Amino acid sequence: MKKADLVQLIHERKSFLCVGLDPNPEKMPQHILEMDDPLFEFNKRIIDATRDFCVAYKPNTAFYESHGAKGWEALKKTRNYIGSSHFTIADAKRGDIGNTSGMYAKAFFEDSDFDSVTVAPYMGSDSVKPFLGYDGKWVILLALTSNQGADDFQFFSSKEGEKLFERVLRVSQLWGDDQNMMYVVGATRPEKLKEIRKIIPNHFLLVPGVGAQGGSLEEVCKYGLNADVGLLVNSSRGIIHASSGRDFDEVARAEAQKIAEKMKVILS
Amino acid sequence: MKKADLVQLIHERKSFLCVGLDPNPEKMPQHILEMDDPLFEFNKRIIDATRDFCVAYKPNTAFYESHGAKGWEALKKTRNYIGSSHFTIADAKRGDIGNTSGMYAKAFFEDSDFDSVTVAPYMGSDSVKPFLGYDGKWVILLALTSNQGADDFQFFSSKEGEKLFERVLRVSQLWGDDQNMMYVVGATRPEKLKEIRKIIPNHFLLVPGVGAQGGSLEEVCKYGLNADVGLLVNSSRGIIHASSGRDFDEVARAEAQKIAEKMKVILS
Repeated sequence: MKKADLVQLIHERKSFLCVGLDPNPEKMPQHILEMDDPLFEFNKRIIDATRDFCVAYKPNTAFYESHGAKGWEALKKTRNYIGSSHFTIADAKRGDIGNTSGMYAKAFFEDSDFDSVTVAPYMGSDSVKPFLGYDGKWVILLALTSNQGADDFQFFSSKEGEKLFERVLRVSQLWGDDQNMMYVVGATRPEKLKEIRKIIPNHFLLVPGVGAQGGSLEEVCKYGLNADVGLLVNSSRGIIHASSGRDFDEVARAEAQKIAEKMKVILS
Repeated sequence: MKKADLVQLIHERKSFLCVGLDPNPEKMPQHILEMDDPLFEFNKRIIDATRDFCVAYKPNTAFYESHGAKGWEALKKTRNYIGSSHFTIADAKRGDIGNTSGMYAKAFFEDSDFDSVTVAPYMGSDSVKPFLGYDGKWVILLALTSNQGADDFQFFSSKEGEKLFERVLRVSQLWGDDQNMMYVVGATRPEKLKEIRKIIPNHFLLVPGVGAQGGSLEEVCKYGLNADVGLLVNSSRGIIHASSGRDFDEVARAEAQKIAEKMKVILS
């Protein structure tokens, strides 16, 4: 999906919500767990319930890999079920030497037809570039993550005062542009968005950490919005596991709607 | 596998060679490609041919994921075929927020019974710790990688002159010890091993980059060996794709033997 199409989708649907499809069996209702392919059946119902309120879906590969080949199959079925009405993100946080990243790109952009994949920057340019060779596909590079461990290395600072996540934002702009790269910036540090927008005014940001991790949508928008909206705000557990009863899909729909209504106000 | 058992294995087999199982269909012989499960059939023959000369096998997950669920199944069959006679490394370079890294740990340590998994440090402590909760299992943390892109961020330097990879080595020692953590240090920068050994004298290092990437075994050993040997030196393409003919397994055996003989001399 091209940037212009994503921006149009956001304006049409009046939402920039991304729903994280991280199905945890411990929180899934019993009647779904008894089905043949519980991961896919769960996702199918979540997608049906939430598609009107979001523009993107983000399955995190860990929740599929932990079920082996069957999980991988469920991931692919989920991707296909979403179709082309939403931006799709394989939240995989991959990154390896060039020939290997090329294989990961093949996995997510060819074997499965995801629009984008999250990539970890530690190994540098040649670990990221193989993902950038696909028309209409995106790298979403980790910059400032939402977890506590982000403090360990992402704020590591040079003698000029540049922090590692700032260097990642700056250097990676040599590899791609705002038509094929986005960045992960956690909602748990909204005050940093102001500085980040100075470095990358035009790029889309994928913002996790609203919901279960405690980030605020309003704070994120205050500093993160740009002329193209420029934000995909993700909630996973806060939507898909809001209920673990038979009504899980209805409750998920209500939670997604709640966020989408806030977004509608913000966009208007 | 415990550290003492790995050290014993190295001394018994007089080798610290790790064979990287990164099967690339473009380099695989035709008669294997025509089989039902070419990845597994290829690996099976490579393992049979090389098991006497190595102590570890390292499948890189990208080469399996690019084949979807069938590839994931081949990875698991490969793991099972190796058995318990070798140390097994899932070269996955994972790392995510705590609950997600926990799912990856489940994927590699429970669904597949690997001894170790490679992990990227960018997201910090809570992205690594979930992998450390398994008895006899290991995290192999990326420190200084063998690729050119390593220059982009791993040498990023603080005002005290500490480089990012040195900080990773230092800080991560608070999370685990030399009984459950190893580090990836590329063979392409052997001169750095001297400094690295000052920070982590006792840890095992996984050293890729000998072979196709041009690193020297002798240089790596000069600076990297410690009292427990402390090195697993990996070659992937240089062994498994040394021939793409019908004789690929015999040629792989000869290549592995060549390296193992050098190692025998070094160990004696």
